[in-house]
Amino acid sequence: MTEESDPQDAIDSAGESKADALDPRVAEYTAGQKQEGIPFIGAGPGDPGLLTLTGKELVDEADLVVHAGSLVSSELLEEHCSHAELVNSVGKDLEELIPLMRDAYEDGENVVRLHSGDPAIYGAALEQIDALEREGVPAYIVPGVTSAFASAATMRTQLTLNEVANHVAFTRPQGKTLDPEDDHIADFVGMGDVTTCIYLGTHAIPETMDRLLEHEGVDPETPVAVVYHASWPDEDVMVGTVADIGEQVEAAGYRASAMVIIGEAATGSGYERSYLYGDWANRGGDGEGDAAEYPDDGKTAEPEVDD
Amino acid sequence: MTEESDPQDAIDSAGESKADALDPRVAEYTAGQKQEGIPFIGAGPGDPGLLTLTGKELVDEADLVVHAGSLVSSELLEEHCSHAELVNSVGKDLEELIPLMRDAYEDGENVVRLHSGDPAIYGAALEQIDALEREGVPAYIVPGVTSAFASAATMRTQLTLNEVANHVAFTRPQGKTLDPEDDHIADFVGMGDVTTCIYLGTHAIPETMDRLLEHEGVDPETPVAVVYHASWPDEDVMVGTVADIGEQVEAAGYRASAMVIIGEAATGSGYERSYLYGDWANRGGDGEGDAAEYPDDGKTAEPEVDD
Repeated sequence: MTEESDPQDAIDSAGESKADALDPRVAEYTAGQKQEGIPFIGAGPGDPGLLTLTGKELVDEADLVVHAGSLVSSELLEEHCSHAELVNSVGKDLEELIPLMRDAYEDGENVVRLHSGDPAIYGAALEQIDALEREGVPAYIVPGVTSAFASAATMRTQLTLNEVANHVAFTRPQGKTLDPEDDHIADFVGMGDVTTCIYLGTHAIPETMDRLLEHEGVDPETPVAVVYHASWPDEDVMVGTVADIGEQVEAAGYRASAMVIIGEAATGSGYERSYLYGDWANRGGDGEGDAAEYPDDGKTAEPEVDD
Repeated sequence: MTEESDPQDAIDSAGESKADALDPRVAEYTAGQKQEGIPFIGAGPGDPGLLTLTGKELVDEADLVVHAGSLVSSELLEEHCSHAELVNSVGKDLEELIPLMRDAYEDGENVVRLHSGDPAIYGAALEQIDALEREGVPAYIVPGVTSAFASAATMRTQLTLNEVANHVAFTRPQGKTLDPEDDHIADFVGMGDVTTCIYLGTHAIPETMDRLLEHEGVDPETPVAVVYHASWPDEDVMVGTVADIGEQVEAAGYRASAMVIIGEAATGSGYERSYLYGDWANRGGDGEGDAAEYPDDGKTAEPEVDD
């Protein structure tokens, strides 16, 4: 990479052109469609079966798979990627990774970048995409299943529950990359009806809970579920409260990544039957993002046909 | 369904037993594993390729697919479900849906419940699961890709961006099922570094933006992207600000569901290169949920091998 191709420069100059006009590919392609270039694929939380069909197709065609090391499960790599050359991105900086992917792509190889979970959540995919495009290599994102959803599935719960968990926050605690004043965990938990999902290393849980306990707005008895390695063969679950989960986690001694779910949704109980399948059932559809949740907002009684 | 099997009773009695002890299946199965019973599958945002491999396998074996009507794309139903009997759940209340699924299951049919997006997000899956289990029919959740992730992929952005978007909120506005005091959209946007993702019908966007503009803590120039029908063939994107997006949306005249993304992440610009691929690259992995984001928190230099 030349000196003018400094990655932060690539980010900043990409930012300038993004401010001028939308990238034409935004309108040209719908999410999930294959495009020219290197796909940044969300591999899902770990279980090989939680990769998407499109992700699998792209990986099948790959000559080179650059993956996120120990964050992508070895089961998934063995099951889906054994035909390709594998490069672990751990320990490689952008100055090494970008030319590696660029050169392979320019040599005509099918290059795939495999991130854990979904690339939009704590993924650092965009800085690689901006840097690649600066080098003339197109790239794009294929969404995936995040570990918060795998954790909810394991816990047999939803992250939203009627009346008790109206909102969901994906967050992380203060640390090297987050200043204490930008740590909003206590704010989210204090709202009372937010399911707070914390993406972090298991070792950071006790101190995160200790900090939460210092906040007046936080009930120490708020339920917490910790899902270690959601969807991996060694997946484990611990349940408790803000007051006592830290000890349990410390005793378990895990060191890899975990999902912490704080709020009533962690229990999957205490919720009210929704309008969806009751008196309001005739007003619209059901499921995520459904306007039938707001039957007074002008939704018609007719199911829409959208194509 | 007998009178004693009132769905709210099923929720409440399930809640009591959940409070006593974790369901043994929580420890027995990892997320993504097949179990006995009716799977509640996240079909993803719409594109047939964004279904998971496990979701596809389960649908392939299905005799009966109960789907969320117009919220699951007809492309997906045609591509993956044409071999099965299809039942649209729209317009059916729990008193009709539960016996329908129970009877088919007890007759030995493979029954699959297909929700849009991920079932944990505004899905109303759990009340069906609790009611089915009260009837003696086991059920479980298979996670999927939510439309917020498809929207980010389309917009070529991440929902978290280093320094400018540290957190993500999934939320919905006040309406029939949410009291005005539980509407947290202005709180999330006011935090400044939260990407606020609103799941709603397109028609509700203008009034939601109008309400936001009344809040002092909300900058009217905050960027907004609206992704209509993310990943569907008729997917469309509108970009603007809290101040002007409402007019654009009104002019477009859409009526089905949309994803509203508020915050700097909507632009995919202005962010700082992360520690992940810079000086900290030798400290750990990369990708979602990575403890390497917190290199001062005790993460080892060795990639973990977790199985």
